[in-house]
Parts: sequence; C-alpha cells; structure tokens
Amino acid sequence: MKYPKDTLTIMTELVQIKDANNLGNLHGGRLMYWMDICSAIAASKLAESPVVTASVDNVSFHEPINVGDVLTIESKVTRTFRTSMEVYLEIWVHKDYGKRKVKSNDAYFTFVSLNNEGKPAPLNLELIPETDHDKKLYDGALRRRQVRLVLGGRMKVEDANELRALFFHDK
Amino acid sequence: MKYPKDTLTIMTELVQIKDANNLGNLHGGRLMYWMDICSAIAASKLAESPVVTASVDNVSFHEPINVGDVLTIESKVTRTFRTSMEVYLEIWVHKDYGKRKVKSNDAYFTFVSLNNEGKPAPLNLELIPETDHDKKLYDGALRRRQVRLVLGGRMKVEDANELRALFFHDK
Amino acid sequence: MKYPKDTLTIMTELVQIKDANNLGNLHGGRLMYWMDICSAIAASKLAESPVVTASVDNVSFHEPINVGDVLTIESKVTRTFRTSMEVYLEIWVHKDYGKRKVKSNDAYFTFVSLNNEGKPAPLNLELIPETDHDKKLYDGALRRRQVRLVLGGRMKVEDANELRALFFHDK
Amino acid sequence: MKYPKDTLTIMTELVQIKDANNLGNLHGGRLMYWMDICSAIAASKLAESPVVTASVDNVSFHEPINVGDVLTIESKVTRTFRTSMEVYLEIWVHKDYGKRKVKSNDAYFTFVSLNNEGKPAPLNLELIPETDHDKKLYDGALRRRQVRLVLGGRMKVEDANELRALFFHDK
Amino acid sequence: MKYPKDTLTIMTELVQIKDANNLGNLHGGRLMYWMDICSAIAASKLAESPVVTASVDNVSFHEPINVGDVLTIESKVTRTFRTSMEVYLEIWVHKDYGKRKVKSNDAYFTFVSLNNEGKPAPLNLELIPETDHDKKLYDGALRRRQVRLVLGGRMKVEDANELRALFFHDK
Amino acid sequence: MKYPKDTLTIMTELVQIKDANNLGNLHGGRLMYWMDICSAIAASKLAESPVVTASVDNVSFHEPINVGDVLTIESKVTRTFRTSMEVYLEIWVHKDYGKRKVKSNDAYFTFVSLNNEGKPAPLNLELIPETDHDKKLYDGALRRRQVRLVLGGRMKVEDANELRALFFHDK
Repeated sequence: MKYPKDTLTIMTELVQIKDANNLGNLHGGRLMYWMDICSAIAASKLAESPVVTASVDNVSFHEPINVGDVLTIESKVTRTFRTSMEVYLEIWVHKDYGKRKVKSNDAYFTFVSLNNEGKPAPLNLELIPETDHDKKLYDGALRRRQVRLVLGGRMKVEDANELRALFFHDK
Repeated sequence: MKYPKDTLTIMTELVQIKDANNLGNLHGGRLMYWMDICSAIAASKLAESPVVTASVDNVSFHEPINVGDVLTIESKVTRTFRTSMEVYLEIWVHKDYGKRKVKSNDAYFTFVSLNNEGKPAPLNLELIPETDHDKKLYDGALRRRQVRLVLGGRMKVEDANELRALFFHDK
Repeated sequence: MKYPKDTLTIMTELVQIKDANNLGNLHGGRLMYWMDICSAIAASKLAESPVVTASVDNVSFHEPINVGDVLTIESKVTRTFRTSMEVYLEIWVHKDYGKRKVKSNDAYFTFVSLNNEGKPAPLNLELIPETDHDKKLYDGALRRRQVRLVLGGRMKVEDANELRALFFHDK
Repeated sequence: MKYPKDTLTIMTELVQIKDANNLGNLHGGRLMYWMDICSAIAASKLAESPVVTASVDNVSFHEPINVGDVLTIESKVTRTFRTSMEVYLEIWVHKDYGKRKVKSNDAYFTFVSLNNEGKPAPLNLELIPETDHDKKLYDGALRRRQVRLVLGGRMKVEDANELRALFFHDK
Repeated sequence: MKYPKDTLTIMTELVQIKDANNLGNLHGGRLMYWMDICSAIAASKLAESPVVTASVDNVSFHEPINVGDVLTIESKVTRTFRTSMEVYLEIWVHKDYGKRKVKSNDAYFTFVSLNNEGKPAPLNLELIPETDHDKKLYDGALRRRQVRLVLGGRMKVEDANELRALFFHDK
Repeated sequence: MKYPKDTLTIMTELVQIKDANNLGNLHGGRLMYWMDICSAIAASKLAESPVVTASVDNVSFHEPINVGDVLTIESKVTRTFRTSMEVYLEIWVHKDYGKRKVKSNDAYFTFVSLNNEGKPAPLNLELIPETDHDKKLYDGALRRRQVRLVLGGRMKVEDANELRALFFHDK
C-alpha cells in the first residue's frame, strides 16, 4: 500500500541556451523530455520496477519560457490500473531569478510497469488517495482514461460513460 | 499560397543507447523531442518565421521502440488559424536493419508563428489542401481544435459543435 | 530579508547510461555538474542575479552510484558574505526503484553574485537562519571560509581563528 | 536484390546554437557527424546488419551554414564490394525558414558490414542501379575506390587504371 | 614500476555556448566534469583498470572563463595508496585565440582502482617520482590525504601529524 | 612569424557508450567531430581569429575503436595560403587502459580564417617549418591542395602540376 506522496518527484531545471530556439524560447519538446523523465521516476517509485511511457494527454503551453528561467516539475501517481498507472504533473516557471513564479501548465502521463524481460507486469500495489487533491485526481482518472481510449480508437463513445460526464457534465 | 506538401519534413533518427532506458526502450520524452523539432520545421516552412509549440494532442505509444531501431518522422501542416497552425505527424519504426517497418503512432502538434520580437504574428499565407488525405486532415482540424479548447478549459462544451460530431458522430 | 528555505532547490536526476563508465558507475564529474547547477540556482534565488562558481569544498563520494539509480540533490544558501555566498548541498541515492534510500554525501559550494556586466556585485540581502540546522550551518560558514582561504593560500594560518577551532576544537 | 532507392535515407536537422561556433557558423565536424549517421543507416538497410565507417572521401564545405538554417541530408548506397559498400550523400541548406534552398555539398562515405561478433561480413545482396543517376554513381564507384586505395597507400598508381581515367579523362 | 609522466594526460576543450551561462561564463560544474574525465584517464593508465572518483579536494576558480576560450587540462598521478591514488591537475585558459595564456587553477582528485566486478582492487604498481616537481607532489600527498580524512570525519585531528604540519608549519 | 609547434593542440577523449553503436564501435562521425574541434583550435592559434572548416581530405579508419578506449588527437598547422591553412592530425588509440597504443589514422583539414563579420580574412602571419617532419608536411601541402581543387572541380588536371607528381611520382 502506498500514498501518492510516496511517489512525489520534484525536478528543477535551468533553461539553458542549448534548450531553446534562436529567439530564446524553450523548445516544447525539451520540456516534454523533462516531463517524461520526472513522471517516469514517480511511476517507477510506485511500481518498484522499470516503466515505459504509454501515453501523454493533451498538453498546452501558455506561458512563454525563456533562457535563464528555472523550471520546477512536480509529479505523483494518481491511480493505478492493471499494468498501467496515471501520473499527474505540475510545471512552474521561475522568472527573474525567482522573483516571479507562474504556473506553466499541468499534464497527465501514463506508464506501463515492466518486468525484467521488458513485458508488461501487473501492479500489485494499492494506491490510497490521501488529500482532497489526491482524491479529486483519483476520481478523474477513470474519465481521462476513457478519453485516451476513445481518442486512441480503442473504445466506442457509447461505452465511455465517464467521458460523457466530462463533456456533458450537465447530464 | 502553399500546399501541405510544401511543408513536408522528413526526419530519420537512429535510436542510440543514450536515448533509451536500461532495458533498451526508447524514452517517450526523447521521441516527443524529435517530434517537436520535426513539426516545428514544417510549421516554420509554412509561416516563414520562427514558431513556438502551443500544444500537443493526446499521444499514445503502442509499438515498443528499441536501441538500434531507426525512426522516420514525417510532418506537414494541415490547416492554419489566425496566428497558429496544426501539424500532422506520422512516426514509423524500422526494425531489424530495415527488414520490418511498423507504424509507431501519429500525432498533432500546434504551433504559433512569431515575429522578430517573439510575439504572435498573423499568418497571411493560405494553405490549400491538395490530396484526399490533405482534405481529410484539413476538415478534421476544426474538430481537433475544439477538443483542445475544451480540454484546456477555454471553450464550453455546448459551444463545441465540431467536438460533438467527433464524439457522437452517429448523431 | 530572506530565509534559507526561500532558496531551497530540489533536483532529481535519473542516472542514465550516458552518465556512467563501462562498469555502470556514475562519473564523479557528472555528479559535480549536477551539484553545481543545483546550488547555482539556490544562490541565484538569494542574490536575484546571475552567479558564478567561486569554489567547491572537499567532496567525498562514499556510496557507489549506478545506472538506474535516482539522485536527489537539495541545496540552500547558508550564509552570505560581501559579494559571495555559501550553499549547502545534500545528495541522496534512491536504489532499486526507490526501495532503498542512502545518503551519498554533502558538500559546500561558494558563488559570487554578478551584475549585468558580469562583475562581482554586493549582496544587499540579509539571510536569517531560521531552524537549528540553518543556525548550525550559518555558524560553521565562517570556519569553512577560513579553510578555503588557507587552502587557497590567501590567508595565513595564524589569522584563521575559526579554523583553529575546527581542527583543534578542544582548544 | 535491392535497388539504391531501397536504401534512401532522408534526414532533416535544425542547426541549433549548440552546433555552431561563436559567430554562428555550423561546426564542420557536427555536419560530418550527421552525414555519418545518415549514410550508416542507408548502408545498414542494404546490408541488413550493423556497419562501421571505413572511409570518408574528400569533403568540401562551400556554402556558409548558420544557426537557424535547416539541413536535409539524403543518402543512398551506390555500389557494393565484398564486405564494403559506398554511400552517396547530398546535403542541402534551407535558409530564411525555407525561402532559399542551396546545395551545400555532396560526399561519399564507405562502410563495412559487420556480423554479430563485429567482424567484417560478406555482402550477399546484389544492388541493381536503376535510374541514370544511379548508373552514373555505380560506374564511378570503382574509380573512387581506386582513389581511396592510392591515397591510403594500399594501391600503386600504376595499377589504378580507373583512377587514371578520373584524373586524365582526356586520355 | 611507472613514472608520473607515464600517466600524463593532456586534454584540450573549446568552451562552447552550451557550456556557459547566459553571461557567457563557463559553468564551474562543466569544468569539474572535464577535470574528472582527464584525471580518471591518468589514474586508469596507472592502475591499468577502470577507476571511480573517490574525492575531490577544495577547488577554487579565480580566472573568469568565457565562451571562445580554450582550456588545457594536464593531469598525472602523484602517489598511490592501497587501492586508491591521488591525481594532480593543472588547468590553463587560453584567451583571445591563444594570444594570452593564464593559469586557471590546480586541483587534486582521488580515484579507487576497480576490478571487473566493480570492487576496489589493490594497486600493485610502484610509482616512482622522477622530477623535483614529482617529488614535491609525492611528499605532499600524505598531508593532503590526512586533510581529506579529517574533513571527511574519518580521522581524528590528533592523529593527523602531517596535517598539523600543513596548517602549523612553523611547529 | 610562428612555428608549427606554436599551434600544436593535443586532445584526449575517453570513448563512452554514448559515442558508439550497439556493438561498441565508435561512430566515425563522432571521431570526425573531435578531429574538427582539435584542428580548428590549432588553426585558430595560427590565425588568432575564428576559423571555419573548408575541407576534409580523404580519411580512412583502419583500427577498430571501442568503448573504453582512449583517443589522443594531435594537430598542428602545416602551411598557410591566402586566407586558408592546412592542419595535419594524427590520431592514436590507447587500448586496455593504456597498455597498448596503436595509430588509428592521420588526416588533413583545411580552415579559412574569418574576420569579426564572419568573412574570410587574409592570414598575415608567416609559418616557418622547423623540424624535418614540419618541412615534409609543408612541401606536400601544395600537392594536397591541388588534389582538393581537382576533386572539388575547381582546377583542371592539366594545371595541377603538383598533383601529377603525387600520382605519377616516377615522372
């Protein structure tokens, strides 16, 4: 049995010139790379095994991120499924040597637990949501899973009850 | 005036040990990094300006990718909006020194065109879909845009007519 | 006025094959690189300016660190001087996917605050040690500074009162 | 049996600041690195085995290449020998976000096919030149091979009939 | 039996933009990374085995190092102990395309020799100091070792006779 | 006035896993990258200005180079022309922790001196060959220059007197 906080992983990255384009904007793909490593570590803590990225939910970048900014990425597992688990990430940008801190975005990554042969391995650990925020993330995980399955063409819309609730919450 | 094929960008990457975890699986984040560069080049060709990543749609990784595999990433712009444009990517994995070729996944990235001060710049170029595939991508772009706006909390479901068509296509 | 906790910087790094030698041992120099970035960010938060590394105290590596291990580096400023400041770092190794956590080592880095021309700039911020641990670090900072000056040949031993206390604490 | 087009490998690279010197000129060595990877992939497709670089013919860089330019490298096998094969590369520079496209240079790399022990392995595949350009490359391959052998001190000039044709084509 | 000169390792590095912060100052950690590789190679030459970094003595950076500067790092083993050995490094900065050459700093790194299982292995090679400089380094090595042990909390000050000589040389 | 030895540049590189393919063979392109940096530094010392790679002569790789090997690259300018200069490189492989040292290959790179606007700048420095080896390299430089010009299609064979001497030395 584990709590989401047992998987909490905090990563700090200095945005260097090598990470940005000529105008000094951080490449979106570099940020995705860091997000993937940070959430994979969180997933590995839960699974106590190697993991592989299964999917990345829709990610939007609102805040311009520049060379010299410092990023903090925080990730923790929200819910486990049979061999996979969902990780929630929150990304903050610290500008002007920490004088200003703005939220860049949040995201959900999904990972599959692997055995030593690199094959999917069942997750035998129970994850207990603890705080209100944990519980909200836990509850929403089923809905987000259905969005992934429908968008990935692996579930029919009419079977996605949770998804209908997401898009048509008044029903 | 431009055609999608004018923006076609083909990238080939050899999966090296430095790109993979200890089991030899390519990091999902490394693939996202390559996808971002490849689609940013396609977007830049359309905009004839620097661009910055605005969003990444849901991406799923089905096919295991290993050290020694060769990836090809093909990207082209599907449709332009006021200052942003959508890019479609298709990723193929070549295994066993090219003897087997399997589709890894496809994806949609959105970019914003920037002026020299790094501010969003209107796209004054018309993009004309040419082939049937181009037209299908062009038509779907509005729907996917609404998914992004709804998932990003910037549009209400009841205003997302195209989205309803996506999820409830039988209606 | 700031507290040490305002400068706290937490970095997590996955030890990858590219960071290690052929036996899978993390290069000491790669760890030093991460320690430098982490402590520079902490120093920058205090100074609210760019900083440059002035010195690194004696660092010992006891715990073998291997590919697949996860490192956490925590750093915070302990004390400021005229244009320089000392940062304390603590490094932990998480082995077996987080099942075992052992302390790797701790270290002290010193940074100089720079103005926009890249010249040393006075630190006008007061740092107030808050916790007992902060105070202990604050008190020891003078002593460690004298060690640096004596080892660097810039202070005579007979002028290093604090240093004598360090080595001959019974006096 | 294979055609040169079966080995065609197209690589696109964005020239980033990390690839250039302080004046923004792409390092020649970085371009050579990309050319090597691109042509090694083409050779691997032909050999269906790992390969190792045996030689690089004289390469000249005429066109200045700068940060922000996009490079495309196209490579295909021209001819096979017992355990080695020659690959032809063509490098294009796309400037001003694709508005101008200029040829940078072309080059010939030679690779040796390896078995699983890393020893040279005979190439049992026949390569059939298809287009006029393929045939011209195929025919010239013997001549270029003699240049390599003579320049490398492994063949006497008087035995290099093809080479004499290259340098004294009017005879 | 070997001489220090048998382990001499000379490394030249061009300081590139990717190695520096936004003001163009070389990251101290990047320099430490290079120093570690250079001294590890020297130690490996002595031990004829893989080695792992055990400790780094106090390092001070006096001379500002900028993008475009060229660094030379020279390292050689000074003395061996049971399974460990000390390496001396001297770092020079070449500015203005080699017109000015200034000493950046010197340093001492300690390495442990490893066997094929990655365990500490006894050094059975005798190192004979040859020049006056070699002999001075050889003689000082015991003293520096005691500093490391005392600073690392593994030796009591009262047992560190050599150390007393270092700090209280008039006694 | 300068001597070739004034431009001597010695680089040592440890071949790491990230530099090699799956069989542990160093990528030829990685070696070319290092050769380019090393010879560019030598050229910069002569020119006292930034330089850009103009051409690379035919390079053959004979000796297999593996992960764990140590490379030393030595380069020095052989002769100057109006705005360009030729650099000679010699590459050695140190195997088994330095127990065996074998010559990998040698090569010639040509660089153009640049002014601050990045345009070719005349070399006003005289280079005086000093040793017999220097003189041999100096004398051969004209011949090799003609090979480059003929192979690059910028000189007719009948004008290349020195080249004829190279290939038909008995005449």
